[in-house]
Amino acid sequence: MSTPSLLILAGDGIGPEVMAEVRRIIDWFGSKRGIAFEVSEDLVGGAAYDAHGVPLSDATMARAQEVDAVLLGAVGGPKYDALDFSVKPERGLLRLRKEMDLFANLRPAQCFDALADFSSLKREVVAGLDIMIVRELTSGVYFGEPRGIHKEGNERVGINTQRYTESEIARVARAAFDLARKRAGRVCSMEKANVMESGVLWRQVVQEVHDADYPEIALSHMYADNGAMQLVRAPKQFDVIVTDNLFGDVLSDCAAMLTGSLGMLPSASLGLPMENGRPRALYEPVHGSAPDIAGQGKANPIACILSFAMALRYSFDMGDEAARVERAVESVLADGLRTADLMGPEGGTPVSTSGMGDAVLAAL
Amino acid sequence: MSTPSLLILAGDGIGPEVMAEVRRIIDWFGSKRGIAFEVSEDLVGGAAYDAHGVPLSDATMARAQEVDAVLLGAVGGPKYDALDFSVKPERGLLRLRKEMDLFANLRPAQCFDALADFSSLKREVVAGLDIMIVRELTSGVYFGEPRGIHKEGNERVGINTQRYTESEIARVARAAFDLARKRAGRVCSMEKANVMESGVLWRQVVQEVHDADYPEIALSHMYADNGAMQLVRAPKQFDVIVTDNLFGDVLSDCAAMLTGSLGMLPSASLGLPMENGRPRALYEPVHGSAPDIAGQGKANPIACILSFAMALRYSFDMGDEAARVERAVESVLADGLRTADLMGPEGGTPVSTSGMGDAVLAAL
Ligand SMILES: CC(C)[C@H](C(=O)O)[C@@H](O)C(=O)O
Ligand SMILES: CC(C)[C@H](C(=O)O)[C@@H](O)C(=O)O
Repeated sequence: MSTPSLLILAGDGIGPEVMAEVRRIIDWFGSKRGIAFEVSEDLVGGAAYDAHGVPLSDATMARAQEVDAVLLGAVGGPKYDALDFSVKPERGLLRLRKEMDLFANLRPAQCFDALADFSSLKREVVAGLDIMIVRELTSGVYFGEPRGIHKEGNERVGINTQRYTESEIARVARAAFDLARKRAGRVCSMEKANVMESGVLWRQVVQEVHDADYPEIALSHMYADNGAMQLVRAPKQFDVIVTDNLFGDVLSDCAAMLTGSLGMLPSASLGLPMENGRPRALYEPVHGSAPDIAGQGKANPIACILSFAMALRYSFDMGDEAARVERAVESVLADGLRTADLMGPEGGTPVSTSGMGDAVLAAL
Repeated sequence: MSTPSLLILAGDGIGPEVMAEVRRIIDWFGSKRGIAFEVSEDLVGGAAYDAHGVPLSDATMARAQEVDAVLLGAVGGPKYDALDFSVKPERGLLRLRKEMDLFANLRPAQCFDALADFSSLKREVVAGLDIMIVRELTSGVYFGEPRGIHKEGNERVGINTQRYTESEIARVARAAFDLARKRAGRVCSMEKANVMESGVLWRQVVQEVHDADYPEIALSHMYADNGAMQLVRAPKQFDVIVTDNLFGDVLSDCAAMLTGSLGMLPSASLGLPMENGRPRALYEPVHGSAPDIAGQGKANPIACILSFAMALRYSFDMGDEAARVERAVESVLADGLRTADLMGPEGGTPVSTSGMGDAVLAAL
């Protein structure tokens, strides 16, 4: 197979800082493990807007379609808050998701043992937590038409459309069932079928895909409001959760916060296989651009490093190498190294962004 | 003013059991405090479907429009899961909300001191928690048109419409600001203005209402996904939260579960003033119909009792009487009385549904 190619879009805020540490890990793989990546870099979000007046240029979009995987840092910041909706930093990310057709967003919510006390939840509720949320990422209310703000009589009306086709639901359901096969074999699908017809269809199609091709998976259905409750009450009841774009946005953030260590959580957004068999893919940390600490060397690079580990696993079928990175991260945490966000009452050795990068490299 | 009138719709599952305890409290007010209510009862949800083939009859709907306040128990159950969308138990509740135009759903998330250890969150994160979530209840994706499931080519497509007018947003914003005035003076509005135009309009209108008429209130805006995170991370940062129908559904359940005592939480749904000056109003516990424990005398009647206390406060301007009920509930909890749902590791005196009712009556 050809040399794996990566496009790095570091973006805004702490994006460039955390991505710098990932670059060092990538270089380590080249020099120490003989696994070379062809790496290019470009702009996204506010950084792209500043340079080109759009949050993602056509050239960058085209490049993203050519590479094996995109690594994204973060987008957005108060500097861009007043921009028109159509050129907000987020639109760059949404364009990538949509045009690359990255329909399956994998968001692991894992509680790291060394950090369990850092959660706002009781240790016993979250210790050992290991959920995979599969969020539909290219449809639903994020992209449905009609949408916009218009005048009716003398008042403004805001409209968005939640729209799901059978095949959109079926393919993300398959992604969830496939993952469950390699995990504990359980999938919980969440919607509001008691209120929304799109939820009724969602439930039906997920059930049909299950019955036809995944009868061995234990499938359950839950209303999304109850899902939010159950995540808070007893998150360990879940293995894989599959849900739509908007519920997935809210529920995966809720689940992420349960772990108490947002700065630790990676994500993968996967699409259809390309000609070389690799899926279209974008990897990014769950945390945002954190403008308040940007440029100060305080950011935790681990979520971004673990996103690269997900790339090794899902794009390049290098599960062992991915596990190597994950073990390095765990050992660094076990050694007590802590960026500012991980500094709890029980203390630890404070490290900067690059200090954390150093430690992970050393552990590798 | 005329004798206050109440329509009791006990509904399904544990609804009738918990409502029976409320009836006893109502009777107590008549005999011991000289505050008489004119009480009628009727069917809603699955119970109405069983009797009439619809989850709310036109006669019941008309009656609900005539009374001062509706007290609702709970709707739904597995028995009705296979029913067509249009006659599901939930449609009865949704019809009441819509036709009574109950646009402001008040959901307090309060952590009772005696129960703080019962939360899945650490005591210090939730002890003393007192948030009021104001959820828009008559519009948004719950009611927007077009909606439904149709065929396109050879596949099914499910559609719902998120739609908000300026005046719908403004009136619920006012409700939130008015409440904040009597509380800590802070409102946080939640939407996804970074992704949805309806959220952009929401944010604008809330800000405009604030600037015009409530400049003394501290208003902030937050994306709903971050809102879910912040509720889990540090819920005490909030005073009043105002949000749309769907986000409100998920976020208020998330907030409710933080308290660890869902069986304790009431809600009020308020509309415009009627001719007699009282608002159209419906009061119901946040918990559902809990079919698994229905009919066993295990249900906790407190959420339903506190919903009646909200009726005293918001429909009948009897704040002192409401506080009397609330204090009675607190003292019963302080005495260690616990229905099954409140029975934590630290023990307590187990009581049945009616046992809890007895205790609250005694404490009154
Ligand atoms: C930045 C924003 C557009 C995005 C979303 O809403 O999907 C973010 O919240 C996420 O979850 O990746
Ligand atoms: C029963 C259901 C229709 C309802 C809703 O979705 O609004 C419930 O979840 C609620 O929050 O009151």
